[in-house]
Amino acid sequence: MPASLFMINRYFPFLQWANAYNSVTLSSDLLAAVIVTIMLIPQSLAYAMLAGLPAEVGLYASILPLVAYAIFGTSRTLAVGPVAVVSLMTASAIGEIAAEGTPDYLGAAIVLALLSGGMLVVMGIFRLGFLANFLSHPVISGFITASGLLIAAGQVRHILGVPGGGSTLPEILSSLFGQVTAINPATLSIGTGVLIFLFFARKSLKSMLIAAGLPARLADMIAKAAPIVAVAATIGLAAGLNLGTHGVVLVGEIPQGLPSFGMPSFSLDLVSTLLVPAFLISVVGFVESVSVGQTLAAKRRQRIDPDQELIGLGVANIAAGLSSGYPVTGGFARSVVNFDAGAQTPAAGVFTAVGIALAALFLTPLLASLPQATLAATIIVAVLSLVDFGAVRRVFAYSKSDFAAMAATIVTTLCWGVELGIVAGVLLSLLLHLYRTSKPHSAIVGQVPGTEHYRNVDRHTVITFPEILSIRVDESLYFANSRFLEDTIAVHVAERPEVKHVILMCSAVNDIDASALESLEEINRRLSDSGIGFHLSEVKGPVMDRLKGTEFLKHLNGGVYLSQHEAVNMLRTTEKCTAS
Amino acid sequence: MPASLFMINRYFPFLQWANAYNSVTLSSDLLAAVIVTIMLIPQSLAYAMLAGLPAEVGLYASILPLVAYAIFGTSRTLAVGPVAVVSLMTASAIGEIAAEGTPDYLGAAIVLALLSGGMLVVMGIFRLGFLANFLSHPVISGFITASGLLIAAGQVRHILGVPGGGSTLPEILSSLFGQVTAINPATLSIGTGVLIFLFFARKSLKSMLIAAGLPARLADMIAKAAPIVAVAATIGLAAGLNLGTHGVVLVGEIPQGLPSFGMPSFSLDLVSTLLVPAFLISVVGFVESVSVGQTLAAKRRQRIDPDQELIGLGVANIAAGLSSGYPVTGGFARSVVNFDAGAQTPAAGVFTAVGIALAALFLTPLLASLPQATLAATIIVAVLSLVDFGAVRRVFAYSKSDFAAMAATIVTTLCWGVELGIVAGVLLSLLLHLYRTSKPHSAIVGQVPGTEHYRNVDRHTVITFPEILSIRVDESLYFANSRFLEDTIAVHVAERPEVKHVILMCSAVNDIDASALESLEEINRRLSDSGIGFHLSEVKGPVMDRLKGTEFLKHLNGGVYLSQHEAVNMLRTTEKCTAS
Repeated sequence: MPASLFMINRYFPFLQWANAYNSVTLSSDLLAAVIVTIMLIPQSLAYAMLAGLPAEVGLYASILPLVAYAIFGTSRTLAVGPVAVVSLMTASAIGEIAAEGTPDYLGAAIVLALLSGGMLVVMGIFRLGFLANFLSHPVISGFITASGLLIAAGQVRHILGVPGGGSTLPEILSSLFGQVTAINPATLSIGTGVLIFLFFARKSLKSMLIAAGLPARLADMIAKAAPIVAVAATIGLAAGLNLGTHGVVLVGEIPQGLPSFGMPSFSLDLVSTLLVPAFLISVVGFVESVSVGQTLAAKRRQRIDPDQELIGLGVANIAAGLSSGYPVTGGFARSVVNFDAGAQTPAAGVFTAVGIALAALFLTPLLASLPQATLAATIIVAVLSLVDFGAVRRVFAYSKSDFAAMAATIVTTLCWGVELGIVAGVLLSLLLHLYRTSKPHSAIVGQVPGTEHYRNVDRHTVITFPEILSIRVDESLYFANSRFLEDTIAVHVAERPEVKHVILMCSAVNDIDASALESLEEINRRLSDSGIGFHLSEVKGPVMDRLKGTEFLKHLNGGVYLSQHEAVNMLRTTEKCTAS
Repeated sequence: MPASLFMINRYFPFLQWANAYNSVTLSSDLLAAVIVTIMLIPQSLAYAMLAGLPAEVGLYASILPLVAYAIFGTSRTLAVGPVAVVSLMTASAIGEIAAEGTPDYLGAAIVLALLSGGMLVVMGIFRLGFLANFLSHPVISGFITASGLLIAAGQVRHILGVPGGGSTLPEILSSLFGQVTAINPATLSIGTGVLIFLFFARKSLKSMLIAAGLPARLADMIAKAAPIVAVAATIGLAAGLNLGTHGVVLVGEIPQGLPSFGMPSFSLDLVSTLLVPAFLISVVGFVESVSVGQTLAAKRRQRIDPDQELIGLGVANIAAGLSSGYPVTGGFARSVVNFDAGAQTPAAGVFTAVGIALAALFLTPLLASLPQATLAATIIVAVLSLVDFGAVRRVFAYSKSDFAAMAATIVTTLCWGVELGIVAGVLLSLLLHLYRTSKPHSAIVGQVPGTEHYRNVDRHTVITFPEILSIRVDESLYFANSRFLEDTIAVHVAERPEVKHVILMCSAVNDIDASALESLEEINRRLSDSGIGFHLSEVKGPVMDRLKGTEFLKHLNGGVYLSQHEAVNMLRTTEKCTAS
C-alpha cells in the first residue's frame, strides 16, 4: 500500500467498511440505531441537566458528534454522546467560573468541548495515546465509583423537590439536610415512583418477560427502553394533573429545531482557565471510551487503534463545540446496547444522529412538561450501576499499594471534587510505584538440584558454595535504588567473610542507568579492595549493548557470563569449591 | 543491647567514639582542626557574601553547627559549615522576599536555617533518607555544575569592582555587559591578582613544593592554606595603600564577639513562603553531605547511617538558626582536608568551632580592610572545581535519557534559577524513567543449545518449537505497561497461526499490580477463546505469593512452571513438537 493511501486509510477509517456496505449491514445498523435513539433521548436530557445545562444541549451533543465519530473513529460499535462522568466533570469545571443558567455557563461548556476536542486531536496526531496508561485500573475504577456516588447524591434534591447544590459529598449532604422540611410531596412521589420502576426494569423486567415467553433479546430491548416509558408516562401525568402548579419542577420550554452551527466567540482568559479541566476530561473520556471500545472489539475479534480513537473522539468533541453541544465520549451502557442490538458499522451512529435530530425537530414541544425528577431518577439508576464496591474489595485483597491509590482517589473525589480526585490518584499510584522500585526485592540464589535453574535459598532447597555469593536483584537498577544496591551487597558480603566471588544475577535487571552504573563501579571498587571478585550473569542484550565500552566493564574485577549456571560452574572449578 | 540503649546509641552516635578517646586521637583531631580552621575562615566570609549576608554570619554558621553535628552526626570526618551551592540557594530563596543588607533579609536566612533543620530532623525521625535517592546522579552532577557556573558568573562583578546583580545567567551577563565602562582598576588588579595566585596554588604549588624537597602532605597543606595567605596579603595591601578611598569595596566593620543565642521572632507568612526553598535546600544539602560522608567513610571501612545523618545535619541547621547563622551542610573540599589532615573523630569539628569562635572574638577587627574582590576570587576558584563537563560527556555517551535530565537541570538552573533547576531535573528523570518502563523491551526466547538457558531468538542461535511461543517481557507488569503487554502478545500470536501454547517467561517481572493482573486475565480469556494455552514460567516468589488465591490463577488455561526449561519440556512432550 502506498504511504499516502496508508495515511488516508489511517485517518479515515470509514473507508475500510464503507465499500463493503450492503443491505444486510444497513438493516442491522438501522435496527440498532432505533433502539439506541430510544435510549439516548432521556439520557441526553438527563446528562445535560447533570452538567447544569439546558436540556436541548444534551440533544445537540448527540447529533453531529455521532456523525463525526462515525467518520474518524475505529470502533465499529462505540456509541458516542453525553455520559455521566464527563457531564459531572463539565459541571465541576465550569461551575467555578459562571453561574448555572447564564449564557456564560453555556458558552464555557462549548469552549470546553472545543478545547478538549483540540487536545484529543493533537494527542492523536502525536500518538500520545499511551498517556492514558498512566491511569491505573484501580484509579479509574475508584474514580468512576466515587463519581457515581457523587452524581447520585447530587440528584437526590431533584427527587425530593428541594433547592440546593454543592459539588462535593459533604456540601451536597449538608445542603440536603438543611432542606429536609422543604420536601415537595408531588415531586417526591414522581421521583420515587420512577426510581422504583427503573430499578425494577433493570433487575427483574427482562427475566419476567422471558418467563412470559418473549425471546431473550426482545425482552432485553424492552427492559432497556424503560427510561423512555418513564419519560412518556410522567410527561402525561404532569400535563394531565397540571403538576407544574403544585411545585413540581418541569424541564420547561425547549427550543424546537436543530442547533446552529458555527464557531463561538470566547476570551483567551476563559481558555487558559479551562485548560487543565479540558485535559482531564479528555484523558478520562478517552480512557472510558477506549475501554468500552476494546472490550466490544475483542468480542468480534476486531481491533481498535487507540491513537486514531483520540482523533475520532477529538473531532466528535469539536463537532459538539461547533453545534452548541458540550463534551462527549463513548458511553458504556449505550455502546453495549448498540452492540447487542446488532450494529455492524459506525453507520449505526449516523442513523442514531438522524433519530436524535428528528427528536429535536418534532418531540421537543412534548418535553416541556417532563418533570426534572424523572430525569434525576434516570441518572441515579444509571450511575449506581457504575458503583463497584466489589472492585474495591478485590483490589484490597490483592495489593495494598493499589488499594491506597484507589482509596485516595475515592476519598479525594468525594470530598474535594473530580479534578483533584483524578490527579491525586494518578500521582499517588506513580509515587507508590516509584517507592516500591526504590526498595527492590533481592534474593541470594542457589542451584535447584538436577537443573541449571537458580532460585532463592530461602524458598527452595538449593545447592550453594560458601566462596560464591550469588545475588539476584529483582528490579531494574536506576537512580532511585542504586544506593540500595550498594548497601545490599555490602551487608551480605560483611556477613560472609569466606566469600571470594560475588555474582550479580541480572535476569531481572531490565535497565542500568547512569546513576546505577556509578554504583556498580563503586561496588566493584570496594569488592576489589577487599580482594573479592565481582561477576555479572544473565545480562540482557539491550543492557549489555550499553555496558560495552564503559569504564565499568574495563575495570570489572571478574567476568560477564551468559548464564548463572555458567558463572557458578566456572568459579567453582577455579576455586575448587565444595557445596555447603 | 536493650532497646532503649540502642535508641540512645542511634540518636547520640558520639557515645560510640567518646569512650575510646585518648591522647593520640586528641592530637590528630587538634592538628586537623587547626588546618580546617585556617581554610574555613576565608570560606565562611566568602560564602556569607555569596548568600548576600554580612561576613560575620558566615563565621557564626561555623561555630555552633559544628558542635551540634559532632554530637548527632555519624561521619567521623565530615566538616560542616557554609557551602557554595547552599549559599546560592539561600540567596535565591530570600532574595525574592527581602532586600539584601536589610534586617528582614538576615531574619529570613535565620528562619530558613531553622525550617530546613526542622525538616531534616523530621525526615530523620521518620527515616525518609531514601527520598534523596530520587535525585539521580546526573541531575545532582548537572545541578552542581550549573550552580558552580552561576556562582562564578555572579562573582565576576566583585572582581571588576562594578555594581550589578541578577540571579540567573542571562540576568548576570546582561548586568555585567551594562557595566563594562564602570570597571574599577584597583579592584580589578586585586581580584585578578588573587585569582591568578589561587589558581597557581591549586594547580602547581603542591608539586613545586614537593620538588623543593617538602614532604607531600605538608606541601598539600601549605597549598590548601593559600586562601588565608591571600586574605592576609590583601588586608595588608588594602590597609597600607588605603584602597578603600580608591573605590575598592572592603568587607568593613564586623561586630566583634560571639553570636547571640536565641529563638528569633518570625511571621507564619514568612514560614509558608520559605517552605519549598527550605525543603529543596534540605534535600540538596543532605545529598551533598551524604555523598562526601559515604566516600570518606568507605576509605576507612567505616559506615555512616543516612537517616541519622539527617538528624545530625538537622540539629546543625537548627543550631545555625539559633545562633544568627544560615543554612549549613557538609562541604566537600573541607571534609577532604579534614580527612587528609588525619581527623579521627567528630571532636575535630568541635575544635574547629573553637578556632572559628576565637577568630570571631579576636580577628574580626583585622577583617574590616579585607577587599570583597579577594573573597570573590576565593569563591570563583572553589566553585570552578565543582564544574564537571567530563561528567556531562560521559553521561551523554552512556544514556541519552539520563543526559536529557542532566541537560534540563543545567539549562533550567542557569536560566531560571536553582529551585526550578533541581525540580525540573527530578521531574524529568522520573518521567523519563516511567516512560521507559511503560514501553518495555520484550523478546521471543529459545533454548541455548546444550544448556537449560533461554535467550532472545534475535541475538542468539537457539532452539524453538513452532507450536510453543515463549515471550520474555523485560519489565515489571504495572499499570503503565499493562495494555502494552496485551498488544504485544496479541501481535505475536496473530503472526503465528501455528502457535498452540504461549509461555510468559517472568524472570524479569518483579511485580504484577492490580492493573496488570486484569490485563493477564484479559490475555488468558482471549488466548483461551482461540484455543491457545497460556503458561507462566520462572515466576518469582513474592509475585507468586500474591497470585495465589486470585481468580486469574484459577481460570488460567495452562500451568505455572518453576523454570522455562521445565515448561518447554513439558509442553513439547505433550504436543510432540519437533524443533523448527
